[in-house]
Amino acid sequence: MNKKQRSENAFTQRIEVAGHLIDSMILSRIFDRIMDLKGEFEVEQFKIGRKTGDHSYARLLVKGHNKSHLNKMLEEIYRDGAIPVKLEIVQYQAAPDDKVLPNNFYSTTNNPTYVFIENNWIEVENQMMDKVIMLDIKNHRSVCKPIREIKKGDLIVIGETGIKVVPPERPREGIGVFQFMSSQSSIEKPTQTISKRIAEDIFKTKRQGGKVVVVAGPAVVHTGADTSLAKLIQDGYVDALLAGNALAVHDVEYSLFGTSLGLNLADGTLASRGHRNHIAAINEVFKAGSLEKMSQTGKLKSGIIYECIKHKVPYILAGSIRDDGPLPGVITDSVKAQLAYREVLKKVDVVIMVSTMLHSIAVGNLLPSTVKVIAVDITPSSVTKLLDRGSGQAIGLISDVGTFLPLLVDFLENLKRSEHLL
Amino acid sequence: MNKKQRSENAFTQRIEVAGHLIDSMILSRIFDRIMDLKGEFEVEQFKIGRKTGDHSYARLLVKGHNKSHLNKMLEEIYRDGAIPVKLEIVQYQAAPDDKVLPNNFYSTTNNPTYVFIENNWIEVENQMMDKVIMLDIKNHRSVCKPIREIKKGDLIVIGETGIKVVPPERPREGIGVFQFMSSQSSIEKPTQTISKRIAEDIFKTKRQGGKVVVVAGPAVVHTGADTSLAKLIQDGYVDALLAGNALAVHDVEYSLFGTSLGLNLADGTLASRGHRNHIAAINEVFKAGSLEKMSQTGKLKSGIIYECIKHKVPYILAGSIRDDGPLPGVITDSVKAQLAYREVLKKVDVVIMVSTMLHSIAVGNLLPSTVKVIAVDITPSSVTKLLDRGSGQAIGLISDVGTFLPLLVDFLENLKRSEHLL
Amino acid sequence: MNKKQRSENAFTQRIEVAGHLIDSMILSRIFDRIMDLKGEFEVEQFKIGRKTGDHSYARLLVKGHNKSHLNKMLEEIYRDGAIPVKLEIVQYQAAPDDKVLPNNFYSTTNNPTYVFIENNWIEVENQMMDKVIMLDIKNHRSVCKPIREIKKGDLIVIGETGIKVVPPERPREGIGVFQFMSSQSSIEKPTQTISKRIAEDIFKTKRQGGKVVVVAGPAVVHTGADTSLAKLIQDGYVDALLAGNALAVHDVEYSLFGTSLGLNLADGTLASRGHRNHIAAINEVFKAGSLEKMSQTGKLKSGIIYECIKHKVPYILAGSIRDDGPLPGVITDSVKAQLAYREVLKKVDVVIMVSTMLHSIAVGNLLPSTVKVIAVDITPSSVTKLLDRGSGQAIGLISDVGTFLPLLVDFLENLKRSEHLL
Amino acid sequence: MNKKQRSENAFTQRIEVAGHLIDSMILSRIFDRIMDLKGEFEVEQFKIGRKTGDHSYARLLVKGHNKSHLNKMLEEIYRDGAIPVKLEIVQYQAAPDDKVLPNNFYSTTNNPTYVFIENNWIEVENQMMDKVIMLDIKNHRSVCKPIREIKKGDLIVIGETGIKVVPPERPREGIGVFQFMSSQSSIEKPTQTISKRIAEDIFKTKRQGGKVVVVAGPAVVHTGADTSLAKLIQDGYVDALLAGNALAVHDVEYSLFGTSLGLNLADGTLASRGHRNHIAAINEVFKAGSLEKMSQTGKLKSGIIYECIKHKVPYILAGSIRDDGPLPGVITDSVKAQLAYREVLKKVDVVIMVSTMLHSIAVGNLLPSTVKVIAVDITPSSVTKLLDRGSGQAIGLISDVGTFLPLLVDFLENLKRSEHLL
Repeated sequence: MNKKQRSENAFTQRIEVAGHLIDSMILSRIFDRIMDLKGEFEVEQFKIGRKTGDHSYARLLVKGHNKSHLNKMLEEIYRDGAIPVKLEIVQYQAAPDDKVLPNNFYSTTNNPTYVFIENNWIEVENQMMDKVIMLDIKNHRSVCKPIREIKKGDLIVIGETGIKVVPPERPREGIGVFQFMSSQSSIEKPTQTISKRIAEDIFKTKRQGGKVVVVAGPAVVHTGADTSLAKLIQDGYVDALLAGNALAVHDVEYSLFGTSLGLNLADGTLASRGHRNHIAAINEVFKAGSLEKMSQTGKLKSGIIYECIKHKVPYILAGSIRDDGPLPGVITDSVKAQLAYREVLKKVDVVIMVSTMLHSIAVGNLLPSTVKVIAVDITPSSVTKLLDRGSGQAIGLISDVGTFLPLLVDFLENLKRSEHLL
Repeated sequence: MNKKQRSENAFTQRIEVAGHLIDSMILSRIFDRIMDLKGEFEVEQFKIGRKTGDHSYARLLVKGHNKSHLNKMLEEIYRDGAIPVKLEIVQYQAAPDDKVLPNNFYSTTNNPTYVFIENNWIEVENQMMDKVIMLDIKNHRSVCKPIREIKKGDLIVIGETGIKVVPPERPREGIGVFQFMSSQSSIEKPTQTISKRIAEDIFKTKRQGGKVVVVAGPAVVHTGADTSLAKLIQDGYVDALLAGNALAVHDVEYSLFGTSLGLNLADGTLASRGHRNHIAAINEVFKAGSLEKMSQTGKLKSGIIYECIKHKVPYILAGSIRDDGPLPGVITDSVKAQLAYREVLKKVDVVIMVSTMLHSIAVGNLLPSTVKVIAVDITPSSVTKLLDRGSGQAIGLISDVGTFLPLLVDFLENLKRSEHLL
Repeated sequence: MNKKQRSENAFTQRIEVAGHLIDSMILSRIFDRIMDLKGEFEVEQFKIGRKTGDHSYARLLVKGHNKSHLNKMLEEIYRDGAIPVKLEIVQYQAAPDDKVLPNNFYSTTNNPTYVFIENNWIEVENQMMDKVIMLDIKNHRSVCKPIREIKKGDLIVIGETGIKVVPPERPREGIGVFQFMSSQSSIEKPTQTISKRIAEDIFKTKRQGGKVVVVAGPAVVHTGADTSLAKLIQDGYVDALLAGNALAVHDVEYSLFGTSLGLNLADGTLASRGHRNHIAAINEVFKAGSLEKMSQTGKLKSGIIYECIKHKVPYILAGSIRDDGPLPGVITDSVKAQLAYREVLKKVDVVIMVSTMLHSIAVGNLLPSTVKVIAVDITPSSVTKLLDRGSGQAIGLISDVGTFLPLLVDFLENLKRSEHLL
Repeated sequence: MNKKQRSENAFTQRIEVAGHLIDSMILSRIFDRIMDLKGEFEVEQFKIGRKTGDHSYARLLVKGHNKSHLNKMLEEIYRDGAIPVKLEIVQYQAAPDDKVLPNNFYSTTNNPTYVFIENNWIEVENQMMDKVIMLDIKNHRSVCKPIREIKKGDLIVIGETGIKVVPPERPREGIGVFQFMSSQSSIEKPTQTISKRIAEDIFKTKRQGGKVVVVAGPAVVHTGADTSLAKLIQDGYVDALLAGNALAVHDVEYSLFGTSLGLNLADGTLASRGHRNHIAAINEVFKAGSLEKMSQTGKLKSGIIYECIKHKVPYILAGSIRDDGPLPGVITDSVKAQLAYREVLKKVDVVIMVSTMLHSIAVGNLLPSTVKVIAVDITPSSVTKLLDRGSGQAIGLISDVGTFLPLLVDFLENLKRSEHLL
């Protein structure tokens, strides 16, 4: 081996990647990264799945100008699903203090991730984006954790080796909305058809024992869709509700006074002294002591929160700095609220986000890319922001929640009826 | 009279104004203008309507720093409904050439306007914004005209005197949407309730023999509301349709192939070779020779245009530079298309604008402020632009036309049913 | 007096109102309310200010169909500045429990408000919207309080009598932006000119010893305007900064790594492993213990937060449920964060809101209508929502904060230079 | 060959594709199409470019359930660059009438396209989207034509065989904006940095003798950027201007009166009688006879149109139905206007679209995918619509044109200065 060869070898790495490489654009992305970073590569082996559905396999020799250039490229492509041919063990280091990470910590994606320890690929539990991986070597476990929960001495994964990321594949089966729209939002698309497909997805998910969580903002009430969401809960389509103080305030306001921000929802007129109503609603809850007591004593007789309480559907109300009140029961500490959301989101299959940027982005941060997400909002930029998180199975509908939710209820009723006819 | 008095008098004007001065904010606006221009005024007389509904009257002495300052103020407040106490005859001058106005021409508002000739206030016919007034003294008439239609020698109103403008008053009676929303757009308002009110307005207008014109863009088809608009036409709620080439192209595409821009509206899937469909639709119309012949020969069997032809509802298709085709029948000359729109808009009572900025703004330019306008669009800035035209009776609904039009059809059916029950 | 007369009298109330009744549209609004509620009125006296700037006075007899109808109308018009001719003392009742209001509590506007106690009009301190008024009779004081701060036994104003509200008047003097734009947002308005006017307002406010508070979102950093805001702080134009965790995170990320969400702001390229950078920034702050320590030890050397610390400009970071981290120093409890914001906003003259709906709405809720508000955002609906709060002196600029803030800095530098030349 | 084999063979086709298959996602897209249509494929050969930059080659056997299913798939994948291994000659048919296509006409993409005639691949001239291909067999030529220009007997390409489409590849070299943003719009991206990159692209294009066309709407004037666009023209950066009537009207209004829609751009105040100004501007042009004469006689002394005339930069003003006037020189017929635009767009390298949906979409329809497009608008949905056309080299900037154009001028001045220093 002459000097030139040695220097070349020093700055190369042999990597491999397997899966639906082409269909899922994994290989395209890997080639992209290398070329963007002005690196070079040679495809040493490439076995393409000969038939639809077959996995493919590629082995590449990646070449950098120097050590650091090579590492830069590897760091990128490892995140896209590549792993070194010569398996390397995951590296880790103890956290130097509570809430302090080792400098070279590995920052997670929201894709399913595995770490190579003790000759095995161990799946990282509770996968979320922009977190770190804590190893529990004794128990052969690894868990995704936010920085705030790290304790001094926790073993934190560092570097980019010994980690395998599985990018999402495009779903192709089934009847619902995910089969014909892929990570696309839909201004000027057929709203009724898309809404019907969303209904099919929810219906199917529930029939298969799946878990559906709704994230909703107060516009649900303002636009007159309060009773529609309440009906979805009543009919068992919602396994949990994630919201903020305002949704609950206006839901109670509507239940007690028929208004939302003082506007009579039935006829669109302004109620006399209506501006008081949302504060009066808050007052009634404080008087009762809690939403639950208000419900038990018959003072709250209808609405979204009422149906949650009646049907034992967990609901988490997160506080925010713009809240009036906030109501008793609202989790005013944002760290605790995030934890409560996380708990509810465990093992969720479908998340429906309606008309709330704040809580929807919060939920997006807590979900792995494998969860189906349906975001409905009238503002295109809100939908775009939500879909930008890189979920493999997220679709957006740019529509008016005041007409979407009633439609959804209708379609679900139809599906239930058709089912009974069979 | 000393020198000081004289100079003061030289720069003052006594004006008067009558009507619902306060309720309609006319007086507020007049005071505003004067103060904005750093002028002064004295209220010499003010008789306020003692009871609800009574007219009020005000006489003001407006004071300027100099002749030009005074005139500046007067020019503004005359447009808000004020007139000089000492009536002045309207001034005019002959157009020096075809399409050329006298320098000091009067530019119109969209409010009802009168000119004082031969001791009478004559109403200006065919009132539109940003046009000029042509006098026909022999016949005691005055007509609003665009610059392009002016012929050499036409008598054109100049200056700002001898002209009375009647600003719009807020409507207060009735059952429809105009009674509870005034010049307001409605993001986060109850969509279903507002849609119901709009249905009531349309229903009432038609029952009273009124004229309803719809202005619509191709998003009506893309969002799956083609059949809803077709149904409105079929049921006699639409007296004319103003649109562009694209609406007709996609309506025919949907009628022939079930697609809009290649998307199957029934299930949301992409049709095979669907990208060809809108060109194929254009081809079929060229083959038939016209939309009318296509309809007569049974090749066009459904849709918006089909119903217009079948029910003899006039429809005007204006060409634009982004058109594919355009279809035979489309008026490709924008000046001729504007004229055709104007003809159709005569004596209209209600205009409904859905999902088209271009044609809606065109229509807004051609309407007096007394026509009721309902603008529905998913983009708030589109609605804002349409309402900005200063119509006294315009409301905006920020919603999804793909759900709004089906809802509107449902509400109208309900109103018809209730009527039969009576 | 016969029976009919008596019954009429029973449902009438004589009210009066004074001020710039017409110019400020106060009277228009009062007439509107009565007519909207189908009531009647007689104008018994009306003295109009004879000259520009003079106050006007009106006395009205309001007539209802019955007691409750009359009260409905009075409740509305009292909020617009009317008071009964026969002065009534303010009514109050003790709070039955902590955080529980008497049923008939008075809900505040954001306009300056006075209560009539012991024959005097006492101004309500700390005026905010949607709160209640607590009386401290012993000390002749009244304070605006949110429901959450009410203690059992606190004397809470009830009903709508004995309360005087002073609606905002349109400002007319001065050189800045408020003189030519009134409560208007400005898509398609001259951005450079408006920005210059905003600079003049800030400059003048500071020269007059006024207080300027900036509310800012992380888009300030993402759009490349970090150094511009830092410069404003450095140059003494900002008296306090209200923001959330994300602004600080990305400001530190930019200061340490030159990136924002991994994007190199200098050249627009993606940094290698850049996705880690904002978590790495959080880690560095946790390592240092606080932003202040990081700054003192020279680890944080530039940026918005750095300049705040260096120049002792208070900054409050409110937590929200979508936060990564959050950083030490962030107030994670929303109730406490609101209190901290409120403290900072005391006696503020101008508030500049850039690119944050959440914190801007929070601040809007805490401000009286007399504070000048300038809202800058690229999304028209965000600006509309902020201006909807009914501030008398709020203007909106729909622009790109990434170009607006650098422009503002330039204009302020020019103003400073011109001043030195004088 | 047994029966099973035969039936299989009947519904299979062997296709090949070459180029940057993976990097440009061509292969991904082909696999996608087949799987979406529930077809099957076998990869018979796959030679991957071994080094960065090498072309790849793939041969696939595509299998359908039946003839029509197979054809469906082939029609799709041929549009993505695949061609049958066994070369087939392009099919064509004579147009049955003027403006009438054969039923099975081939509808074009905006990608470079070749037809196989007489054993050669002939490039289609004047490539545009949604048009047809006319063969001129005698001269070995083929031209892209809109349906309206087809004459009876023209030979029109039909079916999907004998046609090769070359999808765009991602650009990787150079210094400008296209290297770091790929088909992405940029809300919350560093505006100044992106603007600088756009300046570099324009500067480089001009230095290399390229052609730059600007498409602009009237918001350029309203937002105060009139002089900036005029400066770009004056400095030789613009080879042609495509606009509508309104841009010219407000440009002349600004030049004559300093206003845009009556607003003084210098100080933001409303001009007295300013509402007349745009009609007065139109009047002045009619009086002069044309924009050119107005310029020659010294009546028009500045502005966008003035600089076009002075520097002999072609400008096309297309009429639309919402026009006031329109001005002499405006092409009111939309078909003729489209032709005039097409003429100007020949051999263009970079198109900059600012603040006009109508004209930008028109231009997008006329461009092949190989032209670089930069779309700048404050409304995200406008930018999205423009980028949706499938151009390989289009980027969007969501910003305020009132600050973007001045910035662009500054950056271009800097580039010119740096060049002189070298």
